[in-house]
Amino acid sequence: MSLIFVLNGPNLNLLGKRQPEIYGRETLADVERDCAALARELGHAIRFHQSNREYEIIDWIHEARESAAGIVINPAAFTHTSVAILDALNAFEPPVIEVHISNIHQRDEQHRHSSVSATAKGVICGMGAAGYLLALRGVAMCWDACAGK
Amino acid sequence: MSLIFVLNGPNLNLLGKRQPEIYGRETLADVERDCAALARELGHAIRFHQSNREYEIIDWIHEARESAAGIVINPAAFTHTSVAILDALNAFEPPVIEVHISNIHQRDEQHRHSSVSATAKGVICGMGAAGYLLALRGVAMCWDACAGK
Amino acid sequence: MSLIFVLNGPNLNLLGKRQPEIYGRETLADVERDCAALARELGHAIRFHQSNREYEIIDWIHEARESAAGIVINPAAFTHTSVAILDALNAFEPPVIEVHISNIHQRDEQHRHSSVSATAKGVICGMGAAGYLLALRGVAMCWDACAGK
Amino acid sequence: MSLIFVLNGPNLNLLGKRQPEIYGRETLADVERDCAALARELGHAIRFHQSNREYEIIDWIHEARESAAGIVINPAAFTHTSVAILDALNAFEPPVIEVHISNIHQRDEQHRHSSVSATAKGVICGMGAAGYLLALRGVAMCWDACAGK
Amino acid sequence: MSLIFVLNGPNLNLLGKRQPEIYGRETLADVERDCAALARELGHAIRFHQSNREYEIIDWIHEARESAAGIVINPAAFTHTSVAILDALNAFEPPVIEVHISNIHQRDEQHRHSSVSATAKGVICGMGAAGYLLALRGVAMCWDACAGK
Amino acid sequence: MSLIFVLNGPNLNLLGKRQPEIYGRETLADVERDCAALARELGHAIRFHQSNREYEIIDWIHEARESAAGIVINPAAFTHTSVAILDALNAFEPPVIEVHISNIHQRDEQHRHSSVSATAKGVICGMGAAGYLLALRGVAMCWDACAGK
Amino acid sequence: MSLIFVLNGPNLNLLGKRQPEIYGRETLADVERDCAALARELGHAIRFHQSNREYEIIDWIHEARESAAGIVINPAAFTHTSVAILDALNAFEPPVIEVHISNIHQRDEQHRHSSVSATAKGVICGMGAAGYLLALRGVAMCWDACAGK
Amino acid sequence: MSLIFVLNGPNLNLLGKRQPEIYGRETLADVERDCAALARELGHAIRFHQSNREYEIIDWIHEARESAAGIVINPAAFTHTSVAILDALNAFEPPVIEVHISNIHQRDEQHRHSSVSATAKGVICGMGAAGYLLALRGVAMCWDACAGK
Amino acid sequence: MSLIFVLNGPNLNLLGKRQPEIYGRETLADVERDCAALARELGHAIRFHQSNREYEIIDWIHEARESAAGIVINPAAFTHTSVAILDALNAFEPPVIEVHISNIHQRDEQHRHSSVSATAKGVICGMGAAGYLLALRGVAMCWDACAGK
Amino acid sequence: MSLIFVLNGPNLNLLGKRQPEIYGRETLADVERDCAALARELGHAIRFHQSNREYEIIDWIHEARESAAGIVINPAAFTHTSVAILDALNAFEPPVIEVHISNIHQRDEQHRHSSVSATAKGVICGMGAAGYLLALRGVAMCWDACAGK
Amino acid sequence: MSLIFVLNGPNLNLLGKRQPEIYGRETLADVERDCAALARELGHAIRFHQSNREYEIIDWIHEARESAAGIVINPAAFTHTSVAILDALNAFEPPVIEVHISNIHQRDEQHRHSSVSATAKGVICGMGAAGYLLALRGVAMCWDACAGK
Amino acid sequence: MSLIFVLNGPNLNLLGKRQPEIYGRETLADVERDCAALARELGHAIRFHQSNREYEIIDWIHEARESAAGIVINPAAFTHTSVAILDALNAFEPPVIEVHISNIHQRDEQHRHSSVSATAKGVICGMGAAGYLLALRGVAMCWDACAGK
Repeated sequence: MSLIFVLNGPNLNLLGKRQPEIYGRETLADVERDCAALARELGHAIRFHQSNREYEIIDWIHEARESAAGIVINPAAFTHTSVAILDALNAFEPPVIEVHISNIHQRDEQHRHSSVSATAKGVICGMGAAGYLLALRGVAMCWDACAGK
Repeated sequence: MSLIFVLNGPNLNLLGKRQPEIYGRETLADVERDCAALARELGHAIRFHQSNREYEIIDWIHEARESAAGIVINPAAFTHTSVAILDALNAFEPPVIEVHISNIHQRDEQHRHSSVSATAKGVICGMGAAGYLLALRGVAMCWDACAGK
Repeated sequence: MSLIFVLNGPNLNLLGKRQPEIYGRETLADVERDCAALARELGHAIRFHQSNREYEIIDWIHEARESAAGIVINPAAFTHTSVAILDALNAFEPPVIEVHISNIHQRDEQHRHSSVSATAKGVICGMGAAGYLLALRGVAMCWDACAGK
Repeated sequence: MSLIFVLNGPNLNLLGKRQPEIYGRETLADVERDCAALARELGHAIRFHQSNREYEIIDWIHEARESAAGIVINPAAFTHTSVAILDALNAFEPPVIEVHISNIHQRDEQHRHSSVSATAKGVICGMGAAGYLLALRGVAMCWDACAGK
Repeated sequence: MSLIFVLNGPNLNLLGKRQPEIYGRETLADVERDCAALARELGHAIRFHQSNREYEIIDWIHEARESAAGIVINPAAFTHTSVAILDALNAFEPPVIEVHISNIHQRDEQHRHSSVSATAKGVICGMGAAGYLLALRGVAMCWDACAGK
Repeated sequence: MSLIFVLNGPNLNLLGKRQPEIYGRETLADVERDCAALARELGHAIRFHQSNREYEIIDWIHEARESAAGIVINPAAFTHTSVAILDALNAFEPPVIEVHISNIHQRDEQHRHSSVSATAKGVICGMGAAGYLLALRGVAMCWDACAGK
Repeated sequence: MSLIFVLNGPNLNLLGKRQPEIYGRETLADVERDCAALARELGHAIRFHQSNREYEIIDWIHEARESAAGIVINPAAFTHTSVAILDALNAFEPPVIEVHISNIHQRDEQHRHSSVSATAKGVICGMGAAGYLLALRGVAMCWDACAGK
Repeated sequence: MSLIFVLNGPNLNLLGKRQPEIYGRETLADVERDCAALARELGHAIRFHQSNREYEIIDWIHEARESAAGIVINPAAFTHTSVAILDALNAFEPPVIEVHISNIHQRDEQHRHSSVSATAKGVICGMGAAGYLLALRGVAMCWDACAGK
Repeated sequence: MSLIFVLNGPNLNLLGKRQPEIYGRETLADVERDCAALARELGHAIRFHQSNREYEIIDWIHEARESAAGIVINPAAFTHTSVAILDALNAFEPPVIEVHISNIHQRDEQHRHSSVSATAKGVICGMGAAGYLLALRGVAMCWDACAGK
Repeated sequence: MSLIFVLNGPNLNLLGKRQPEIYGRETLADVERDCAALARELGHAIRFHQSNREYEIIDWIHEARESAAGIVINPAAFTHTSVAILDALNAFEPPVIEVHISNIHQRDEQHRHSSVSATAKGVICGMGAAGYLLALRGVAMCWDACAGK
Repeated sequence: MSLIFVLNGPNLNLLGKRQPEIYGRETLADVERDCAALARELGHAIRFHQSNREYEIIDWIHEARESAAGIVINPAAFTHTSVAILDALNAFEPPVIEVHISNIHQRDEQHRHSSVSATAKGVICGMGAAGYLLALRGVAMCWDACAGK
Repeated sequence: MSLIFVLNGPNLNLLGKRQPEIYGRETLADVERDCAALARELGHAIRFHQSNREYEIIDWIHEARESAAGIVINPAAFTHTSVAILDALNAFEPPVIEVHISNIHQRDEQHRHSSVSATAKGVICGMGAAGYLLALRGVAMCWDACAGK
C-alpha cells in the first residue's frame, strides 16, 4: 500500500457551487470521497488537499518527496502561470499525473497553455471529475508495474 | 452493452517492434487484447482498428456514426496534420477520447500540436498503453452516466 | 461543349445528413443534380466526384489534364492541409475555381487558411451549395471568353 | 423586385484605364451596365456607386439599411484597412457579398487580409469583373430562398 | 467654466437603433443630453459631435486646440485604424479621455487594439453610455486640480 | 444600500510613499477615505482591502460572492500574471470594474497585458486615484439600473 | 519644364505650430515657398497641397496622372495606414518620392511601417524640411535622365 | 551488394511532362534508369517507387526496415505536410537521404519547410534530377564506411 | 558597514538535496555561511532569507527599503513569472543584483525570460553558488564607490 | 570648409560591373568623382572609402570622430547584419546619413531591415547613385545650419 | 577542364581536431586532398581555401568571377549571419553549391537558417565530409551539361 | 598559476572616451591594469586583447585552446551577431565567462540577444568595468575547484 497525494489549485473550493450547468453539482468533497474509495479499492491511501495559495501546493509537493508514491494534481489557474510548481514537481521522482476537469485545449488562450505538462508523466483533461479517478488508476498502475505485479 | 471503436493511426502497427526502450515491448495486438478484456469486464464490446491510411480512419468514424457509443482514438502522426479526421469526429456525437502513448507536450514542435483536441471530449496522454484502458473506462463512465446508472 | 470536373473532398459525403441546421438538408447528390442541370443549360457537361482519399483527388486532377476545360473544387478539410493537391492543380492549366460552402474566414484558425488559393483562379465561399453553381458559371464564362463568344 | 446596392471602393474609378493587361479594358461603367442588365433579368434593380471616400461608403451602407435587399461590395483598398466599413456592414442584416476582381490570396501581404470578410455572408474573388455578376446572382438566390421560391 | 469636446466616431449615429439588446436603446442624442446636463452640473459646457469622416474628427481636434479644456473621445472603428487621429491628439495638450461603450478587451482581434491609447491620458471602457459621464467627470477633476480647487 | 468591495494588489501599500512625482502624494489611506466618502454619498458602503498576497485577494473575492453588489479592483502587478484572480472573478456575478492608476497601454510590455480584463465589466485606467471614484460611481450606476431607479 | 506635385498628409497644417522644439519653427507655407523656389531654379513648377482627407490625396494623385512628371509625397499618418494611397500611387507611372520629416525608423511601432514604400521609387526620411528639397532634386534628376540631359 | 529504396512522392509521375522549361524533359522513368545504372556501377541494387498515396510510401518504408541498406526519398508535397512519413523514417535505422529537385529554400512559404529533414541523415536540394544520383552515391559511401572499405 | 539582503525564491530550500549531480551538494545553509563570511570580510552584514511565498519576498524588499544598502536576489521560479517582485524592486533605490545558479540562457523556454532583469542593476548567472559571492562583492563595490573609497 | 566621409560597404567595388541593367553602368569611381565635384561646389571636401571589411569601416568611423563634419554611409550588406557599425556610429556626434542605391523596402526579407537606421540622422534609399549626392547636400545643409548660415 | 573554387568558412581549420566523435577525424587537409583527387578524376582542378575572415571569402568569390566554373562553399558560421557573402555570390553567375557537414535542420535555432541558400543553385547537408565530393560532382555535371556532353 | 584570456570586441577601444556620463571615465587600459593586478593577486596571469576584427577574436580563442585556463570575453557588438565566435568558443573546453558592462536586458532589441550565452559557462552584465574583475574571480574559482583547492 502506498500514499498518493491529490492536490488541487485555486478556486476549486467552489467546485459544484458555481456554474453547476458547466462544472456539475459534484463538490470537491464528493471528489475526495470518490478518490478515497477508489484508492482503497486499489490498495492505496490518499492525502487530498486544496489551496488557493501557491506556496502551500509547493510545500505539499516537497512533503510528498518524503512519503508519496505519486501525485495527482489539478493545478487549476496555476497550470498556466506557475513555474514554481513546475520546479517543485521536477524535484519529485515518482509519477505525477496532471488532471483538468475541462478540455483546456478548447478554452481561451489564457487557459490553454500548461506550464506543468513539461514535467508530468501523464495528462488527463476533459473527463470531468472522473479524470481524478482515471489519474488515480494511472498512478496505481505505475506502482504495480514497479512492484512487478 | 454498447460498442466502442478503438482507432489507431499510422506507424502504430510497429508498436513494440521499434525502439522498445521508449515505447515498451507491448505490441498493438497486446493492446487490443487488453482493451477487449477490459471492455468485456465493463460490459461493452470493442472494434479495434489500425491504419496508415487517413481515409480508412475517416471511413471508420463515419461507420461509427451508425453503431458506436464512443470512440477512443490515437491518431498518431495524423494528430498533428489531419483536419479531415477532425471534421469527421465533429460529425460524431457520442464522446470521443483522444489517447497518446507519450506525453506530446514534451516532444518536439512537430509532435506537440493536436488538431483533434478541438473536438475530443477528453484527452489522455503520457500514460503509455494504459492510456487506452483509462480512455475505455472514460467512455464507459459517460455511457453509464447517460444510462442513468 | 466542354467537360468540367467538380471535385469534392473528405466528409462531404455526409452533406445534408449531419448538422442540417447548419449545412442545410441538401445532399451531395442534390448538388450534383443541380450542377448537371446548370451545366447542360450552359452547354457543358460535368464529371462529379467525392472522395475522402487525397490521392483520388490528385488522380482526378491528373485525369482532368487530358480532358477538362476547368475544375470546380471544394477540397473540404484538404483545403487546409494538402500541398499535394495544390501541386496537382499547379500542373493543370485551365481555370480552377475553389468553392467553400461556409465562409471560411469566419471559422476557427484551423479552418481558415487555404493552401489551394495560391493556385486557384478564383475563390467563392460562404454562398452555401449555390457556390457550386456560381463557380460553374464562372468556368463557363472563362470558356466563352476563350472561345471568343 | 428588390433593390441591391453595388458599392465600389477607392481607385476603382480608374478601372480599365490603368494596367489594362492586368485588369482588362472593361471600365466601371461597363461593369455597372452589365450588373444593371443582369439585375433586370433576375427581376431586381441596382444602385451602383463608387467612391474614394470611406465615409460615403459608410453612408451608403446606412442608407441601404432602409431600402436594400442585399449589398455587393468591392471595398478595394478599404478591404484591408477599414474597420468602420466592417462595423457599418455589421449593422446591415440582409446578405452582403464581398467581391474582389483579383485573387487577393495571391497578392502581397498588404493586399491579402480582409477586414470585411468577418461580416460578409460570402466572398468571391479572382473572377475578374464577372465576380460582380456572380455576386448579384448570389444575392438574388438568397432573396428567392427567403421569398420561398 | 470651460469647454469640453465630446467626439464620436463612425457608425455611432446608429446608436440605439441597431442591436438594442447589445447596445441598449439609448441613442446618441440621449447621450448628448446626459452629457450636457452633467457638464452643466459640474460647471462646464460641451461641444458634442459625431462623424463618419476621419477628417472631421481631426479638424475638431485641431479646433479644440484653440478653445477646449479637454476632449472625451469615442473613436469607434477609428480606434483601431487611425494614426491620423492619434497624431492630432498628440498635438492637443489638455487631457484626452478615450471612451468605449463595450469592453474592447473582450472583442475579436480586429476590435481589440487601440491606436489612440498611446496618447490618451485615461481610458474608460465597458461602462456603456455611462462611460461618457465618467469621462466628463474625469476631465472636470483634472480641470479642478489645475485650477487648484 | 449595498456593499462594494474595493480590492488592491501588491505594492499598493507603498502608494504615495515612492516616486511621488509619478504616483502623487496621495496614500492608499487617502484613497480609502475618499472612496468611503463617495460611497456614503451614493448610498453605499465599502470594504477596502490591500494585500501583497494573491490568495487573500482570491479569498476576498470568494467572500464578496456572499455579500457584495460589485467589486472595484486594482490588481496592480497581479493584473499581468494572475489567472487565479481572473477565475475567481469569473465566479462572481455582479459587476467588476478594473482600475489602474496609470494608463497601462503606455507602459512597457510587461505591464501592458491584463489577464483580468477578460472578465471585468469595465476598465478604467490612467485617471490616477480618481479612477477609483469613477469606478465606484460605475458600480453604483449598475446597482441603480438593476434596482430600476 | 515639368510639373511636380508635392502632397502632404494629415496634421501637417500644424507644422511649425506644435512642438517647435521637435519639428522646428518652419511652417508648411515656408516649406512650400522653399520648394517653389528650388523647383524654379531647377526649371520646374510645383503644385503644393495639404489635406487631412485621404480622398483628396487620392484625387490629387489621380489628377497627377494627367499632368505631373513626378510626385513628392509626405503622407504623414496615412503612411502607416492607407492602402488606398498606395494603390493610387501604383497607378501613377512617373517617379514618386516619399518624404518623412523625422526618421521613422526611430519612432514607436505605430509610426514605423510605411505602406507607401512598396511603390515609391525612393524614400527620404529624417532630413527635416530639407527632405522635401532633396526629393525635388531627386525628381528633377530623373526628369533630366529621361530627357537625356 | 545491398538494396537501396528510392521513393518518390505525389505528382512526380508527371515529371518531364509538365512545365518542362522548369523541371526539364527528363521523366521519372529516365531518373529510374539512371539510378539503376549508377547503383549497379556502385555494386548495389535499387527498388524505385512513386506514389500519390501517403500510405504506400509509409508501407514501403516499413518494408525497407526488413531489407534495405538505405533510403533515398523525394517526398515532394508530403515533404511539407507529412508527420506520418517522418515517423516511419524515424523507425528506419540505416541512412535516409532526402532529395528535392528544386532548391526549396527559394520557393514560396508553403514549399519551404520540410518535416522530413528532422530525421534524414542528409539533404540534397536544387541539383535537379542529378540530386538522386548524388544521394545514391551518398548512401553507397555510408555502406562502404560501415563495411570498413 | 552596511546591511545587504540576500533573498531566495521558491524551491531553493531543496538546494543540495535534489539532483546533486546538477546543482552540487552545497546546501542553502552552506551558501548562507559563505555569504556571511565574505560579507564580514568586506565589512558588511547580511540578512539571508528563503521563501516559497511570493509575498514574503515582496515584504522583505519593502523592509529593505528602510535598512539595506543593496539586495542580492535569486528569485528562482519567480524570475519568470513575478511582476509583483519586479514592481517591489522598482521601489528600492540601492543596487539590486540578480543571481541565477545555472545559465538560464541555456534552459528551456519557460526558464529563460527574466521579469526581474528589467530593474536589476546587474545580473550574474551560471556561476553556481559562487554567483552569490560575486554578487556580494558587486554590491560592496557599489557601496565603496558611493562612499568615495 | 569641412571634411565629409563617404563610406561604402562590401561588394560595392563591383558597382557598374555586375547586373548593369539593375545597378546601372556607373562605377564606384564615377560616384566618387561626382561626390568630390559636388562637395567642392558646396565648399567641402570628401574622404571616399570602400571596403569589404567590417573593421575597416569601423576604423574609418573612429577616425572620422577626429576630423569629420558628417558621414555619408552606404553600408551595403552590413546594413542588415552589423551592430558593430551601429555602435561605432553611435559614438560619432555629427550627422550620419545612410544611403541605399535601391529601395530596400522592396527587397526580400534579408535585405529589408537596417541596423544602422536606429542611429542615422536621415536615410535616403532608392535614388540610385544620386542618393549619394542628395546625402552630401544633406550633410552640407546641416553644416550650414550649425554655422548659422 | 575548368577551375572550381572550394571555399571554407570560420573554425573549419579546426576540423578533425575538435570533437572528433562528432565531426570525425578527417582534417581539412584530408578534405582538400580528396577533393583534388576527385576533381582530377572528373577532369577539373580546384582552388581550396579556408578563412576565418569574411572579407577573404568575399574577395575569393570576386576573384572566382574571373576564372571559376563553379563554387563549392561551406560558409560555416557565416551561413547564418553573412548577407555580404550572399551578395557576393549573387554577383557570381556559374553554379554555387552550398555544403554543410552536419544536417543544419537538426541543429539549434542559431545554426538552422542559411542566408546563402537564397542564391545557391543547390544545397547538400548532413553528408559529412563526403558532401564536398558530392558537390564537386554536382558542379562537374553542370559543366558537362553546359558543354553539351 | 594559469593563463586567462580577456578578450574585448569592437568599439571597446573607445571606452572612457565616448559618453563618459554613461560608460564612465575608465579606459580599457585602466581595465587591463586592474585585471592584471587582480589576476596576480589570485595567482594567475592574463592576456588582454581588444579588436574590432571578428577574425582576430576567433584566432585568439583558437590560440587559447593551447594555453588558457579560461576566457573572459566581452564580445561587445559581436555578442548580438557572431555565430563564428560562438562556434570558436564551443571548441574551447575550459570555462568561458561572458561580460557586458551594461545590463543588456535593459537595452533596445538589437542589443538584447546574445549569441554567445548559448556556450558560456556564466554571464555577468550590468556591473560596469567591475564585471571583468568578478569574471576573473569566477574563472579563478573554477580553476581552484578543478585543482581541488
